Amino acid sequence: MTSYSDIVQARKRIASMIHQTPIIESSLLNEWLGSRILFKGECLQRTGAFKVRGAINTLAKLAEQNALPKQVVANSSGNHAQAVAYACSLYDIPAKIFSTQNVSAVKAQATQYYGAELALYPTRLEADEAVKQASVESGTLWIPPFNHPDIIAGQGTLVMDALEQTGDVDGIFAPCGGGGLLSGTLIAAKTLCPAAKVFGAEPLTANDAAESLRQNKIISLSKPPITLADGAATPSVGEHTFEVLKLLDGIVEVSESRIAYWTQWLQHLLKLHLEPTSAMSMQAVVEWLKHQPKNQTVLVLLSGGNIDQSKMQQIWSMDHLGEIPNL
Amino acid sequence: MTSYSDIVQARKRIASMIHQTPIIESSLLNEWLGSRILFKGECLQRTGAFKVRGAINTLAKLAEQNALPKQVVANSSGNHAQAVAYACSLYDIPAKIFSTQNVSAVKAQATQYYGAELALYPTRLEADEAVKQASVESGTLWIPPFNHPDIIAGQGTLVMDALEQTGDVDGIFAPCGGGGLLSGTLIAAKTLCPAAKVFGAEPLTANDAAESLRQNKIISLSKPPITLADGAATPSVGEHTFEVLKLLDGIVEVSESRIAYWTQWLQHLLKLHLEPTSAMSMQAVVEWLKHQPKNQTVLVLLSGGNIDQSKMQQIWSMDHLGEIPNL
Repeated sequence: MTSYSDIVQARKRIASMIHQTPIIESSLLNEWLGSRILFKGECLQRTGAFKVRGAINTLAKLAEQNALPKQVVANSSGNHAQAVAYACSLYDIPAKIFSTQNVSAVKAQATQYYGAELALYPTRLEADEAVKQASVESGTLWIPPFNHPDIIAGQGTLVMDALEQTGDVDGIFAPCGGGGLLSGTLIAAKTLCPAAKVFGAEPLTANDAAESLRQNKIISLSKPPITLADGAATPSVGEHTFEVLKLLDGIVEVSESRIAYWTQWLQHLLKLHLEPTSAMSMQAVVEWLKHQPKNQTVLVLLSGGNIDQSKMQQIWSMDHLGEIPNL
Repeated sequence: MTSYSDIVQARKRIASMIHQTPIIESSLLNEWLGSRILFKGECLQRTGAFKVRGAINTLAKLAEQNALPKQVVANSSGNHAQAVAYACSLYDIPAKIFSTQNVSAVKAQATQYYGAELALYPTRLEADEAVKQASVESGTLWIPPFNHPDIIAGQGTLVMDALEQTGDVDGIFAPCGGGGLLSGTLIAAKTLCPAAKVFGAEPLTANDAAESLRQNKIISLSKPPITLADGAATPSVGEHTFEVLKLLDGIVEVSESRIAYWTQWLQHLLKLHLEPTSAMSMQAVVEWLKHQPKNQTVLVLLSGGNIDQSKMQQIWSMDHLGEIPNL
């Protein structure tokens, strides 16, 4: 299992290659909720999401061992694709990303801008099969999106950076897709801020992690979910992440309407272009705060800010700004 | 006329009461345009816009003279309302904002949160008449939105802050509503970075400033314009600002479609929730860059980030992200 010291080492490795993103808060939101909500603005990270942390850590660790691959492959139509493409560009390693034909134009552009080749397949199943075949070629490294100790260690650096900026907090909140970010967060927080409760948030329509924790075994979604929070649409968590996710103080399943609600409000209050996956965590925050005394200090990890036009259109199709956040 | 030294003094006065907002750039956009575009992220300013600079400067100057008013009034349904409300809260002065009944819920909320009273009238004409009547009451100060030397001096601090962060640039771009920001920018830039060209951007449907410069006299819009860039929908510039605007190197009239285009692209690339009024300047940037050698350094003043739901819905109703920016 990934240890705290793995995260400390990852942080040293990647520090010079990533941005230190700011902590942002809204006095209006703090007033309305009676607590202090500190947001780690990781949507301002290189490639627009935390995913670069794990991808860079993977390659940087191999570089230390003089064991860099000749080429890298990955399967993703989301932020992991851009993260791998960017990390490979730092080490001048050719990268090939296997994705589906419905990948959004903006994500395809960015992946190619970072120098990666993009191979598109009709279905996710076909893309997954193709990456598996490509990965057996000699000198090829397949960088997985979440279920690997080096990825988890890399993602755990986000909360380390954040806690250094905020000091101790009472609660830490992050979205759950495959569980890489949340696992790294749990491991780091247990050492750095052991009194803090750690919560995940997941779309109700893609609640495989909540279901897995309830049944105490990994449950997969039976079909691709329909959700605004595409970063948390992963069909299942992995063996590595599931073991760590068992340490969570809770996971909240969020309706699509609340995901849109919080995306509108956080974009408006924080002036950040942040993903529904990131905003979703706020529903877990308010549900937790309802049962706490006033004046809690809360850290919310805003995981990313890559949103295509059709999602933005959906998010802003109804007016949620008429309903002020409260407990 | 406002002088450079007025802006220097304004900056000293307001520094401790405002945020230093960051300079942000997109490597992707720089690559596409062959120049370096530096964005001053003033949408992250207190109240979400540069307008606090002028409002605070007005009161801070009076405080130095022991001449603070007993109450303040202002007419605005936009960022100036929140700016005046916030500035008055800093000095514990009651503020009353005169606005129209169609003011957006989010702007009304924010204005009231900062402690101001909101008086709503059916039409702009009636609100303007009411503020005029209220302003004659003894001890009352009417803070105008742009046409006053203290406001212009306050807004000029934005480019001073920005140039200290960026160093010299070749071109400076800002939107033109009443011309307060652009006037302050021109006066400060002529001293701080005299070689830089300074350009304004205005909605084509609200092009009173461009028309005024063409005819060399102040021209008013004949009716309220329909534009996404509501911050630049002001019916006319003022006598103070018009004199300074004559120093512009150009003003570009931007179509609604290009305003939506640049708002989508800048929100996407910069991960900032910025107003159409702010994004509009990019059309002026590309039109200027077309006739310049490569590798210019450009400063764009992102004036604010307050957008209501109906505007967001309009901005994102069509997909502009399929068409990559170029010259």
